[in-house]
Amino acid sequence: MQTVSNALNAPHRLRPDTLQRVTRSIELLNYRPNRNARSLRTSAVELIGYCVPSWPHGQVHLVMDQFLHALCTSAESSGRHILLFTAPVGVEGMPVYEDLHARRLVDGFVLSQTETHDPRHAWLKEQQIPFVSFGRVWEESTQPGPWVDVDGAGGCATAVQHLYDTGRRRIGFLSWPQTSGLAENRLSGWRARCGELGLPNHDELAVRCRADTIDEGARSTAELLDADPAIDAIVAISDILALGALRELGRRGLVAGVDVAVTGFDDSPLASVVSPALTSIRQPMDEIAGELIDILTTPDPKGPTERLLQPELVVRGSSAPG
Amino acid sequence: MQTVSNALNAPHRLRPDTLQRVTRSIELLNYRPNRNARSLRTSAVELIGYCVPSWPHGQVHLVMDQFLHALCTSAESSGRHILLFTAPVGVEGMPVYEDLHARRLVDGFVLSQTETHDPRHAWLKEQQIPFVSFGRVWEESTQPGPWVDVDGAGGCATAVQHLYDTGRRRIGFLSWPQTSGLAENRLSGWRARCGELGLPNHDELAVRCRADTIDEGARSTAELLDADPAIDAIVAISDILALGALRELGRRGLVAGVDVAVTGFDDSPLASVVSPALTSIRQPMDEIAGELIDILTTPDPKGPTERLLQPELVVRGSSAPG
Repeated sequence: MQTVSNALNAPHRLRPDTLQRVTRSIELLNYRPNRNARSLRTSAVELIGYCVPSWPHGQVHLVMDQFLHALCTSAESSGRHILLFTAPVGVEGMPVYEDLHARRLVDGFVLSQTETHDPRHAWLKEQQIPFVSFGRVWEESTQPGPWVDVDGAGGCATAVQHLYDTGRRRIGFLSWPQTSGLAENRLSGWRARCGELGLPNHDELAVRCRADTIDEGARSTAELLDADPAIDAIVAISDILALGALRELGRRGLVAGVDVAVTGFDDSPLASVVSPALTSIRQPMDEIAGELIDILTTPDPKGPTERLLQPELVVRGSSAPG
Repeated sequence: MQTVSNALNAPHRLRPDTLQRVTRSIELLNYRPNRNARSLRTSAVELIGYCVPSWPHGQVHLVMDQFLHALCTSAESSGRHILLFTAPVGVEGMPVYEDLHARRLVDGFVLSQTETHDPRHAWLKEQQIPFVSFGRVWEESTQPGPWVDVDGAGGCATAVQHLYDTGRRRIGFLSWPQTSGLAENRLSGWRARCGELGLPNHDELAVRCRADTIDEGARSTAELLDADPAIDAIVAISDILALGALRELGRRGLVAGVDVAVTGFDDSPLASVVSPALTSIRQPMDEIAGELIDILTTPDPKGPTERLLQPELVVRGSSAPG
């Protein structure tokens, strides 16, 4: 039995002819290693825990199925699987992580919904449990662990550049409340690129929506256009707000993509079910998932464990060349 | 070691005083059974496999995160967890199911996206692997295995009843192409209840949308209202189509909920981000997940293994009392 085990897990310990004989038997028997028996002896990450986020009621999460599909696919291509679980946000959720690991149900974690002073990172580090975050922790001077994230500022800068290249010269921004680190990051990309291009980027051109709803997107677009009728493009921080912008333009008899261009963020399925279809900034889900699994499953990663990926602008009718 | 094992897994085999002594030691040591060691010996379902659906590009799946959250919660309340995986649809996906079970990674499956002549049911039955489907298989004379589903016909009938009770007398229906068993089921609820109430239910009042998009919902609403301006309510087979109806009403200067009432299906997050907020038919996700896990984890279920659950109508402004 030990010889078979060595052939599977430590082939260098066997004489070549013994190894060959055992390997042939394994093939003949069509033997497949059983995870339950194996993982008692191996320390490789085999099941990766991911806490399925619960969102405040009414908050829309339009690309989670894309993310989960990509995460599973990446895990599987490395011979691993995703164990899905639920846990309360914050310190109340820690016993769930602790229990999953103590019972050896999972060998590592992919975190998302990271929060300022998130207790998970320090605990996982102390326990020497592999983990990686999708998303940076905002308002921390140093990041508490490895992460993969999408360059929201870069994405919004790319949207501004595209609008400039297609002739737009006065670009508004629909943002979220100032308390969101994510929002400030995306907004900074709009502000910087407008500045570089010599376009106006004063605060009045960036409206804070009170919620991520179609209504608020429409209301804020009305506010923008009332204050500054020369606006010829709007960069929205989400697809939902962009949908609100489209609605308000329609209400005013303005043609989206002709009179005023509109771009969204996330390239959610909604972007292609409206007319004109919405130009939007797509997070590269396959790449994100690949980097997460790579960091998580490489024992001593040689590359950086902080990876900022560039989103891709998907151009559609709502920003057709003017 | 065998005594401890008996105390945990077959306490009736031990003398009471021995059992008490061992149990006390277990408590003192704060011992937790290790899944990897345990499941070699127990046949209980401990990890449940769920294939994360991949949807055709552009198809919107707005409530999957709600379903997954409910499924995890239910599994966890029975001491089990969800293993997420990907597999091709149809017979190409079978080796994935086979491999997951052969390697004892999962002990049972929750199926969704069931298809006519779905190969999974027969194979799982033959292997005596526990499984249950979320959703019936349409166009089969007998269902190929246990299932939990939502009564789409009943949901649409409830929407019609609500519209009737609030004074509407001419109710249109926005449907999907005729090839969908799900669509025919929901449509039949509208047709039947309209008939019972003495309301018109001829085919011209039910429009087939070519795709589940806001555009198609708007176009079909225009078609309905052009052909029959007396229509005072529209039951849409999805929230997306209902959003299209709201858009078309707005374009015509009609007030949704006042001039024409609109209802959707799924109570997706979109239902509350539009104005007026959308009346919609909510699938009871917690109950669905609870029944799935109950059927899957009960060795010889005494209750029926075909469970049709009633959805709930969530009334909002788009169908405010006229």
